[in-house]
Amino acid sequence: MSDRNDRYSTRISNMRASEVRELLKLLDQPGIISFAGGIPDPALFPTDAIQQAYNDILSENAGAALQYSVSEGYRPLREWLAQHMASLGVDCTIDNIIITTGSQQALDYIGKLFISPGDTILTTWPTYLGALQAFNAYEPNYDRLTPDGGNTTPDEYKKHAEQAGGQVKLAYLTADFSNPTGETIGLAERSKLIELAHDLDIPLIEDAAYRSLRFDGENAPSMLALDIKRQGDIDKTRVIYSGSFSKTLTPGLRVGWVCAAKPIISKLVLIKQAADLHSPTINQMVIHHVAERHFDQQVEKARASYRQRRDYMLQALQRYMPDGVTWTKPEGGMFVWMTLPEHMNGAELLAKSIKEIQVAFVPGGAFHADGTGKNTIRLNYSLPDAEAIDTGMSRLGKLIKLEMTAA
Amino acid sequence: MSDRNDRYSTRISNMRASEVRELLKLLDQPGIISFAGGIPDPALFPTDAIQQAYNDILSENAGAALQYSVSEGYRPLREWLAQHMASLGVDCTIDNIIITTGSQQALDYIGKLFISPGDTILTTWPTYLGALQAFNAYEPNYDRLTPDGGNTTPDEYKKHAEQAGGQVKLAYLTADFSNPTGETIGLAERSKLIELAHDLDIPLIEDAAYRSLRFDGENAPSMLALDIKRQGDIDKTRVIYSGSFSKTLTPGLRVGWVCAAKPIISKLVLIKQAADLHSPTINQMVIHHVAERHFDQQVEKARASYRQRRDYMLQALQRYMPDGVTWTKPEGGMFVWMTLPEHMNGAELLAKSIKEIQVAFVPGGAFHADGTGKNTIRLNYSLPDAEAIDTGMSRLGKLIKLEMTAA
Repeated sequence: MSDRNDRYSTRISNMRASEVRELLKLLDQPGIISFAGGIPDPALFPTDAIQQAYNDILSENAGAALQYSVSEGYRPLREWLAQHMASLGVDCTIDNIIITTGSQQALDYIGKLFISPGDTILTTWPTYLGALQAFNAYEPNYDRLTPDGGNTTPDEYKKHAEQAGGQVKLAYLTADFSNPTGETIGLAERSKLIELAHDLDIPLIEDAAYRSLRFDGENAPSMLALDIKRQGDIDKTRVIYSGSFSKTLTPGLRVGWVCAAKPIISKLVLIKQAADLHSPTINQMVIHHVAERHFDQQVEKARASYRQRRDYMLQALQRYMPDGVTWTKPEGGMFVWMTLPEHMNGAELLAKSIKEIQVAFVPGGAFHADGTGKNTIRLNYSLPDAEAIDTGMSRLGKLIKLEMTAA
Repeated sequence: MSDRNDRYSTRISNMRASEVRELLKLLDQPGIISFAGGIPDPALFPTDAIQQAYNDILSENAGAALQYSVSEGYRPLREWLAQHMASLGVDCTIDNIIITTGSQQALDYIGKLFISPGDTILTTWPTYLGALQAFNAYEPNYDRLTPDGGNTTPDEYKKHAEQAGGQVKLAYLTADFSNPTGETIGLAERSKLIELAHDLDIPLIEDAAYRSLRFDGENAPSMLALDIKRQGDIDKTRVIYSGSFSKTLTPGLRVGWVCAAKPIISKLVLIKQAADLHSPTINQMVIHHVAERHFDQQVEKARASYRQRRDYMLQALQRYMPDGVTWTKPEGGMFVWMTLPEHMNGAELLAKSIKEIQVAFVPGGAFHADGTGKNTIRLNYSLPDAEAIDTGMSRLGKLIKLEMTAA
């Protein structure tokens, strides 16, 4: 039986197993200390509030909660989100918001809307692996987005894209505490990126999955808020804001949202209608019930917990890592990004690390659309506790030192 | 800003609003008697069992229920489904099963896996509107599948597809109590369709959304079961079985599944991973909890209720419809399909019907990939009660008679 075509089929079979999948496999092995995941600590889930929400909703409104519903999403949740977006400086109405089944789905639908085979997507090196996986289904090429300088002009981007057989169709990035680097893009760079999107007449996806998890430093305005300031009206902006409750409330209910200009939202609603009708009704009602009552305090709880673990991680890295290894100092989110000496290979280090010191992480090459970054690794600190962080980094530091000496 | 391309953009803007959407809009108008929906009666939802399931799961297993999980789905639910499929004569393992966010999502992912722009999909005229919507995103052409005869040979199908600029890539149909016609495909026709799929070397999607809702007559074997008989092994079959809990337990949790040969399932898992990571964890656990304890009795309850309404509907049609109007006599499912005299137009009748007699239904043209079927309408009986059915059909019969006389 023939699939869509050979190119696509190859692409699918080459897709990497997701980090979650890998993590779950690794956790099955006894004794592994894992920094591989990108998943929240389940101890932080607002379980009681969620249970209360299910009981309230099923006692009072079961017929609606268990029935089909509309593709754009549960109206009270969209109203809550319009308020939430307003608190980020984004003046919008519910018609600027669609609910998705997690923010991963938003990336899939955005790829579906904008990308034809051969078109070009601009993204940072490295970038979120899941975004590459979602976009790859639409067979794009990638060109490098360089927020902090770089001197590719809009015309050069266009030329590259034409040479690759398509057009520049969108830009994608995480502005706050990115997965995988933990880094944040400064205000001046945000403005430059928005200019670029307008110059190229393309949408710019602002993946805001980690935005609420700032530990210290000052909030940079959302790129959508900046674009609204520039344009005077959300419906004239180029930024597509992709949000998620996965890192603040719970990922297991799979509730995310997109906030953008109405013409984009109305097309995403049609795409969603054709692709899965709507996100589960009761999940949206539960998220609304919990967000309305507990969002701020839940975010505070998560921030406090992850801030402490970030501190443990940075202290342990300082203590145990040899000279020649560098790492980011994230102001929020879940990840530290480590750069090893140039001759070292993160994937080879992982194989040794699991076998010899029972420590897991994600090699950085997978996050690079061009296959570079082999000497980088991603370390997650949202799940391991203080002791695991200390023991893990102590072991990893020794292994890296050994490898550096051996080379 | 330019979308994927103009053709796709036009296609999106031409997509019809879903039946659910239409129904919800109509229900907002006071006094409308609606036969437009295709949605289950919420009075049948196993609300208590579902509430019990949420409480049990959140009390005993909240960490897992609210966390990320694997793309192929919750293992105990896949095990339950392997047993369920065995009861339909489908000998399979959990590796033949993936959980999807409703069966609509299965259609989207199958389109994504198999269809390139210009390829041909074989489907019945009429067919499920949502399938056309899901597949249209991948820009296929359609050719007509004729289960009960027709004399298009495999070579002719191939030739048509080549002339249309692609290849025949899949066939799609609902074998049992189809949406929209309520009709069921006989055993001999099932075998012929399986031969055709093998001759053309294409997958054949068996949409089994309504399969459990048989009221009378004898169960025809699932097409997947027949193909296993032919091939001796599910992993050598061409049939992709798409199932759903939406019509038996609840649609609001959005849980469906696909059962097929392993090579297909493993590709769908990669597609799902890239497209939304996984279906909501807790929804899968709740469906498993309820299915394990109440599936059979729930199916019995739904069958009894819908059988009675089917009977009311057929009696009312018999009583009120003028000569020259014909309709199907479904042995299960949720729909009766009515054929009006050739000169009449279902869409025009709907407009008059809503305005003059406050009765809603779905015009049949939308279910035809080639735009024919203008003189047909779909009547749903799963939601209206006996009185609504009698009043609605009495009014509709009079209106049709008037229209026939006027013409």
